[in-house]
Amino acid sequence: MRILLSNDDGVHAPGLKILYDELRKLGTVKVVAPLEEKSTTGHSLTLHKPLRLIQMDKDFYGVNGSPADCVYLGIKQVMKQMPDIVVSGINRGANLGQDVYYSGTVSAAREACILGIPAYAVSLNVDFKSRRNENKLNYLTAAKMMVKIIQEYQKKKFPKYTLLNVNVPDVPFSRIKGVKPARQGFRHYSSSVLKRVDHRGKDYYWVGGQYLGFLDEPETDCVVVDQGFVSITPLKLDVTDMSYLEEMKRLSE
Amino acid sequence: MRILLSNDDGVHAPGLKILYDELRKLGTVKVVAPLEEKSTTGHSLTLHKPLRLIQMDKDFYGVNGSPADCVYLGIKQVMKQMPDIVVSGINRGANLGQDVYYSGTVSAAREACILGIPAYAVSLNVDFKSRRNENKLNYLTAAKMMVKIIQEYQKKKFPKYTLLNVNVPDVPFSRIKGVKPARQGFRHYSSSVLKRVDHRGKDYYWVGGQYLGFLDEPETDCVVVDQGFVSITPLKLDVTDMSYLEEMKRLSE
Repeated sequence: MRILLSNDDGVHAPGLKILYDELRKLGTVKVVAPLEEKSTTGHSLTLHKPLRLIQMDKDFYGVNGSPADCVYLGIKQVMKQMPDIVVSGINRGANLGQDVYYSGTVSAAREACILGIPAYAVSLNVDFKSRRNENKLNYLTAAKMMVKIIQEYQKKKFPKYTLLNVNVPDVPFSRIKGVKPARQGFRHYSSSVLKRVDHRGKDYYWVGGQYLGFLDEPETDCVVVDQGFVSITPLKLDVTDMSYLEEMKRLSE
Repeated sequence: MRILLSNDDGVHAPGLKILYDELRKLGTVKVVAPLEEKSTTGHSLTLHKPLRLIQMDKDFYGVNGSPADCVYLGIKQVMKQMPDIVVSGINRGANLGQDVYYSGTVSAAREACILGIPAYAVSLNVDFKSRRNENKLNYLTAAKMMVKIIQEYQKKKFPKYTLLNVNVPDVPFSRIKGVKPARQGFRHYSSSVLKRVDHRGKDYYWVGGQYLGFLDEPETDCVVVDQGFVSITPLKLDVTDMSYLEEMKRLSE
């Protein structure tokens, strides 16, 4: 199997290297990932300026662009053919609920999906508040789960223009309770702004905020991962609100 | 009505100013938009560094960030309360099919949608090949259509966590054939890479490509706009492939 691997935490991220090592059990792997961290940069494509592509190692390439740029250049310039699958991750932090729009990790997988390639995004549900050292995080759990999931779903086949978004609890492999298909949920964030003054007396603003928990609806990705299961959420490209569309049509007749 | 207006073409874009002038017929309008063009930057939020907010005029503010940043700061810092609606556009170029993931214009509206605010994105279906002067484009058609659409849909109410993505043919107002609810289609792009050498002998890569037409399926946004109608596509946040999720569940039982 020919695998293209990317992420949004950057080409030097520990989760990327651990996933690379595991994926090699499935075939040949080329890594094309951003040189700088690109978390929360969404589905950006760099159409307005040139990009650089740096080979760092036999299988590792860095790009001064977005995760979607990496998939694009990875296919067209590094592999020079369509890979059998594209994998993105392991992200440092979950991508649950509406995170899928902000996430560079999911966007790399979506870029492949738009090109018609089977694509997987994988994220580790890290508790940011506990500030554990990077080498204490259970990336290996997620990497081993992904090998199993890819083996299973490449056999089953899944629809073209649908990608699989996988989220893994940050626990040792033996403590994973199982794998559950789940729908996309909704997460609550505090949406704050820090307004402060810089060294030169000018105001600056820092947007962000804390994760406050999730909407407690049954069988969502948020709930399933919270219960200690690996969630797999199939995401399609068509995001039309079909039920409201039908209502719009009735009202406009 | 209190309206927050943003875009991704930047605070100096002609389409923004024309929409501002029309929206003032509906209420008070504050404009918070990127200082630089942010086309195709997706649903990016700048969480890793501070932002600046510059007041340029009574109602116009510029931000050195993404369209979603602008909505975020617009609500929290400029309006200091939830607006009644958020509008994003008029984008120079359609946002049809899977463009909704790349589009900064749609992402600004989606950021408002995630916050529970009724949100509208509006784009003009400009033919990029014809290279017409900016003042020959029919932004006024789109601006006038938006006033009508907002009046209609604010009365009807539409679901929370659904936004309305509007695309307008680039023709004079009198030549618009009508307004049609439409589902999200799919566009074909050439996905090319220009590999060239810079002044210093180093390779660079430019990603992009030409728009090659759309998947010809009935009642999609692409088809409807091509036929000369304004399309309104309701986009929800939940992008789960529900039919495949059901199959996954059956297979995993």
